[in-house]
Amino acid sequence: MFSVTVRDHVMIAHSFRGEVFGPAQRLHGATYVVDATFRGPELNEDGILLDIGLASQELSAVTAELNYRNLDDEPAFAGKNTSTEFLAKVIADRLADRIARLGLAGLTGITVTLHESHVAWASYERSL
Amino acid sequence: MFSVTVRDHVMIAHSFRGEVFGPAQRLHGATYVVDATFRGPELNEDGILLDIGLASQELSAVTAELNYRNLDDEPAFAGKNTSTEFLAKVIADRLADRIARLGLAGLTGITVTLHESHVAWASYERSL
Amino acid sequence: MFSVTVRDHVMIAHSFRGEVFGPAQRLHGATYVVDATFRGPELNEDGILLDIGLASQELSAVTAELNYRNLDDEPAFAGKNTSTEFLAKVIADRLADRIARLGLAGLTGITVTLHESHVAWASYERSL
Amino acid sequence: MFSVTVRDHVMIAHSFRGEVFGPAQRLHGATYVVDATFRGPELNEDGILLDIGLASQELSAVTAELNYRNLDDEPAFAGKNTSTEFLAKVIADRLADRIARLGLAGLTGITVTLHESHVAWASYERSL
Amino acid sequence: MFSVTVRDHVMIAHSFRGEVFGPAQRLHGATYVVDATFRGPELNEDGILLDIGLASQELSAVTAELNYRNLDDEPAFAGKNTSTEFLAKVIADRLADRIARLGLAGLTGITVTLHESHVAWASYERSL
Amino acid sequence: MFSVTVRDHVMIAHSFRGEVFGPAQRLHGATYVVDATFRGPELNEDGILLDIGLASQELSAVTAELNYRNLDDEPAFAGKNTSTEFLAKVIADRLADRIARLGLAGLTGITVTLHESHVAWASYERSL
Repeated sequence: MFSVTVRDHVMIAHSFRGEVFGPAQRLHGATYVVDATFRGPELNEDGILLDIGLASQELSAVTAELNYRNLDDEPAFAGKNTSTEFLAKVIADRLADRIARLGLAGLTGITVTLHESHVAWASYERSL
Repeated sequence: MFSVTVRDHVMIAHSFRGEVFGPAQRLHGATYVVDATFRGPELNEDGILLDIGLASQELSAVTAELNYRNLDDEPAFAGKNTSTEFLAKVIADRLADRIARLGLAGLTGITVTLHESHVAWASYERSL
Repeated sequence: MFSVTVRDHVMIAHSFRGEVFGPAQRLHGATYVVDATFRGPELNEDGILLDIGLASQELSAVTAELNYRNLDDEPAFAGKNTSTEFLAKVIADRLADRIARLGLAGLTGITVTLHESHVAWASYERSL
Repeated sequence: MFSVTVRDHVMIAHSFRGEVFGPAQRLHGATYVVDATFRGPELNEDGILLDIGLASQELSAVTAELNYRNLDDEPAFAGKNTSTEFLAKVIADRLADRIARLGLAGLTGITVTLHESHVAWASYERSL
Repeated sequence: MFSVTVRDHVMIAHSFRGEVFGPAQRLHGATYVVDATFRGPELNEDGILLDIGLASQELSAVTAELNYRNLDDEPAFAGKNTSTEFLAKVIADRLADRIARLGLAGLTGITVTLHESHVAWASYERSL
Repeated sequence: MFSVTVRDHVMIAHSFRGEVFGPAQRLHGATYVVDATFRGPELNEDGILLDIGLASQELSAVTAELNYRNLDDEPAFAGKNTSTEFLAKVIADRLADRIARLGLAGLTGITVTLHESHVAWASYERSL
């Protein structure tokens, strides 16, 4: 099995509802360093799984939809806690949609990891 | 599948028995940068897999049992080589016990990785 | 010249005023991974420049004043853009105050670096 | 499941054929930071999966075959685009051959990851 | 003193002349992860030393002149060994020229660091 | 001013005397990831400050004198706390001696940084 990973980042504000979050119930923010991993069993006729430039471009298109925003104001996330693991799924699902629309063949799975600091990160893994 | 990872570290002394270890048969030591990854298929009603603060606290409780010790003197490891991969299992198993005692629902697996330097690390992965 | 550095992090929300900031004029946020470096010419009678545990504790006390906050609402920063370099100075100055109050001898300078992502960081360096 | 990973690097020149590669069709080069992960279900009588010194030595033997070369001139890669994911497979397969020749028991899989920059990497995973 | 640093990378081919270089006399290549640090004593009226977006853009313009090239064929480097430290100076000097042309006030120095691997890097520091 | 840095690591055991050290008074250990930076104002006729291979070799020779040892038993450190900053000076001074013996011209300073974990490191800087 092959995989290709590209890294980008987003800087957002948000707050959490629920006592478990303690001080993170206040409006605060995060830089998420985002790693998107694309998987597939075979290389194509160009000898690649996926063009790294294209992968970066797709990830960048998805992160741009979140970047420099207060996620508490985003209709798409109304009533949701935009936790690190929740956002990993959002980005993975949006990447999956873009891959489907591009008609990229040969990709069978994707994992998105969001690093919220040097000591904590979260991932979501799905098939395509 | 979701995962949440938290990072901590321990600083220990130990020695190894067996010719394969060469100079590492002498009493020496290591800083292990420890990554604990918790996995599960769904987010809970708070929109998280596991509170990152709680995950850090549990990992810290486990690393505290090892920190600033000579592992050659620990009864729990008598007759054992406390290799990086062995210690990854020790920490994973102790975390699994704590998760069971806490009654944390929804977690199905755990992976613990110990980085012994910038050029070598080892992991142990298990289900919960 | 000796130095000791400890790392911590803060997660904050803020917005910037000024056209130069483009989309960062919107309310957003950041994780700042904060490195505080303490410098001095000599080691003390314990063979250290500064206890690393104490250094971590002091840095943690300063970052706690900023953590999980919307900096736009902090009276201390009224009318200021809380840029990465500005916050590096805030943290350095607050650390300098604490060092003075603790009466820590032998420290002659401090540098604080805030990493806002994997591709951008800023520092402030001052004498003590 | 246990794993042990060691890190090394290679510095090579190459070019790519195919319009998808854009400017990378020109002769250029890369440093690949190479992580080789060895997996197996049990520790041996020495309490290890694999001696880290031996793992480093084997990886180093494989990377030496590529290091400081123009891969466009290597007969082994004639007619191939030596993409990051392609080279990950080359190194994984060569490591697998060496493990078989050494008669190392207990290893069931290997993953090789090549980091081509701080924002892009690729992997190949196989069983043994 | 304040500083702002941005990170980019280039992927180049080259060879070295001189016995000291051993196998690096052969045509090979490197990814250089490039950190450009801009220094100055004061923040401007926007509360910044330098816009991070502008800094990234300027660094990117300079690295684009080198990226995906065989430096042995570049007239600007004829008769020169394009060592890591030499290229750090090339990039620093080109950035200094661009800063002068942009008329950016308040910057007094620049440091450029090129990481050629996870275990080796080189820098050039100059005033502006 | 140019600089070249190479990275290596050592794994040692030791204990500290003094109440300030708390649990670190017990026998424990550390992996120190060691960065040695060599500085000088000019490149030599080969276009380098210092051969990176030679720099790595010299650093490796110095770290080999400490590696896989209990520093409490080293006569050279009798009566000393082998703190991170103390060991940075030991390595810097030993490198300076080797550089003098090798008759390496053009180097004017050296800095050695020891990373004891992902959240703490110490340096010693001296002229040559």
